[in-house]
Amino acid sequence: MNTSTARATYHHGDLRVALLAAARALLDEGGVSAVSLREAARRAGVSPAACYRHFADKDALLTALAVQGFEEFAQALGKAFKGAQQPFAEMGVAYVEFAVQRPGMFRLMFGPAVADRTRSPALLEAIAGSTRLFESGLKTSTQAAPDDPVAGLRAWATVHGLATLAIDGMLPKYDPVMLARALAKLPLQAP
Amino acid sequence: MNTSTARATYHHGDLRVALLAAARALLDEGGVSAVSLREAARRAGVSPAACYRHFADKDALLTALAVQGFEEFAQALGKAFKGAQQPFAEMGVAYVEFAVQRPGMFRLMFGPAVADRTRSPALLEAIAGSTRLFESGLKTSTQAAPDDPVAGLRAWATVHGLATLAIDGMLPKYDPVMLARALAKLPLQAP
Repeated sequence: MNTSTARATYHHGDLRVALLAAARALLDEGGVSAVSLREAARRAGVSPAACYRHFADKDALLTALAVQGFEEFAQALGKAFKGAQQPFAEMGVAYVEFAVQRPGMFRLMFGPAVADRTRSPALLEAIAGSTRLFESGLKTSTQAAPDDPVAGLRAWATVHGLATLAIDGMLPKYDPVMLARALAKLPLQAP
Repeated sequence: MNTSTARATYHHGDLRVALLAAARALLDEGGVSAVSLREAARRAGVSPAACYRHFADKDALLTALAVQGFEEFAQALGKAFKGAQQPFAEMGVAYVEFAVQRPGMFRLMFGPAVADRTRSPALLEAIAGSTRLFESGLKTSTQAAPDDPVAGLRAWATVHGLATLAIDGMLPKYDPVMLARALAKLPLQAP
């Protein structure tokens, strides 16, 4: 332990969690460009060198954050699905809600910040988890024609486009969640 | 003229055009983060100070680039519209094509890089030009129910989402323009 400045000490594994929590706060505060290994280490109270033992580089840290993001995203979709009268439509609303509440995370998950998603099996698995939920939802939808091979893509593109336009300030006059309800043909007031 | 290093000389107004062309090349090569006043000046062969006479800061340069982008985007939509059997569907394909061909410009136009679009009347007018074309297209569409108040938003969100997912690597197995044709219910081979 460094004697000249205060350093936090962590049990094995806890430092990774602390670094991720610090990086996540940076992401939520200032977007992807605000995330750095050095600043995450500083906030967790350890040296940058200690941080590098858990994350080889910034891309590794961003990838781990994106894994966390997709896991939480799947939870949000699953929660919207459960017990809803129109589960797939409610999932679409939850998709847009997630983006609006956590634009930094949403941009990290779906944007160009992670260099190559296929290099991380954990990230691919987290994405697949969300995709499986989305596909379960699609099967319950009465709006999608069962013989339409691109119904799932159309639904995905629509909610993703709405979410992206909203967080990028292209729909300044409207409440994005109300718009999502309108596009999903749900009552504008939740029952 | 600086005697120690070669400097380009420009007629009044030409330097602005040269700086924009240099910035546009930087954007196409490396995305928004690669654009800087200093590098645009270097490429145009002038001092950074000469550049500041035309663009107060990086945001001013990015805004001018985005104006150019929306003007070219409107041209692309207009070209797709003209003489097409299904003009609105062809505009949707052109929208996705533009994004795939010029991802850096597309992200600049619709993304968070420009601080505040409402501060630039020229940018608002360029966006309005694209919007007017899009709305003319919508009126010709037989797919949108005329009593559907969100038909235009649905169509916009769908093509924007498809374009965004494609350029951000979320649809790696597919040709985005083919997908756009499928979503627009156009023949997959142009006639």
